[in-house]
Amino acid sequence: MHYVQAGADRVVGIDISEKMLAVAKEENSHPNITYVRMPMEDIAERKEKFDVVVSSLAMHYVEEFDSVVKSVYELLHENGVFIFSQEHPFNTCFSGGERWTRDENGRKIYANLSDYSVEGERESTWFVEHVKKYHRTFSGIINGLVEAGFTIQQILEPVPTQELLAQYPEDYDLLHKPDFLLVKVRKNCKKADRNIGS
Amino acid sequence: MHYVQAGADRVVGIDISEKMLAVAKEENSHPNITYVRMPMEDIAERKEKFDVVVSSLAMHYVEEFDSVVKSVYELLHENGVFIFSQEHPFNTCFSGGERWTRDENGRKIYANLSDYSVEGERESTWFVEHVKKYHRTFSGIINGLVEAGFTIQQILEPVPTQELLAQYPEDYDLLHKPDFLLVKVRKNCKKADRNIGS
Repeated sequence: MHYVQAGADRVVGIDISEKMLAVAKEENSHPNITYVRMPMEDIAERKEKFDVVVSSLAMHYVEEFDSVVKSVYELLHENGVFIFSQEHPFNTCFSGGERWTRDENGRKIYANLSDYSVEGERESTWFVEHVKKYHRTFSGIINGLVEAGFTIQQILEPVPTQELLAQYPEDYDLLHKPDFLLVKVRKNCKKADRNIGS
Repeated sequence: MHYVQAGADRVVGIDISEKMLAVAKEENSHPNITYVRMPMEDIAERKEKFDVVVSSLAMHYVEEFDSVVKSVYELLHENGVFIFSQEHPFNTCFSGGERWTRDENGRKIYANLSDYSVEGERESTWFVEHVKKYHRTFSGIINGLVEAGFTIQQILEPVPTQELLAQYPEDYDLLHKPDFLLVKVRKNCKKADRNIGS
């Protein structure tokens, strides 16, 4: 609905889960919005073009990142934008053991990083057991996007502001290890885009 | 000398250290090579243009990353390339304590990540005490380059190959935490460059 309010005359929402689509339909129905049940790995089947493709916390479930990224590239108009969030590589790399080292008071002092450079499948428990995720390094993500033809526009690793930390000091551990990664890339580039700040 | 052998008709080597320049002159002298003593923060003073700017393990000593990156951008011809290596953000973030968590046999099992999201000055000991370095996150590095006008071409986080690990199993900890980051960016972009793989 946000996209319709922002002026989109056509919005297609895809999800593999019938339940999620039912919730979406109930909460966000509009003549401009269509919902389609399909795995994101199959989006190349959509033979239409879009100005914007958005994916929220899903790319870390994709085994063939490069392939999905290429499909998104094909779906976009020239200068179209792909924005996605995913679990941060510091999180997706986790392959067992303890996620944090704590001091004698139980305070998290280090995020435990292991197997960061070993890309591939990870199993974890998230509501249910044996949830499969796929870890990719920063360079794996960036290079996959560049090789598909995208221009990197912006990367965010959001953390709480100083104001929020003053209010919730227990969230300081997010400064040790951000949980999410947000990426904005563009299909091709216009010269004007490349000269910001120069 | 490598660059002269690769065909460069003009190479300018800069360093802030007279000693390093003396070594460079002794090891790599050639009519096409000039050495200039200057801090890299001042490279904007060079009023010539280059096809390639290379910086090896120095950018993490720069306080004003964005400013140096903009100077490099100005120094480059259209489609010129800037390639640099630096300490990996997993290393530059280090602000004290233990770098590794070890098991009972002393084996490194986790790289200890702390204050990753807190950019800025770090002091460390490297040959001498109180060496100042500046930590930047991945997003800080990428966004600084993009805002200067660069197009991200490739990122590398090198780790030993499986063959090397079979030979030197004690180096497995490099898979937990790569030590270096290599970045290749281009000034502007030709359309041909943006369509790799599409």
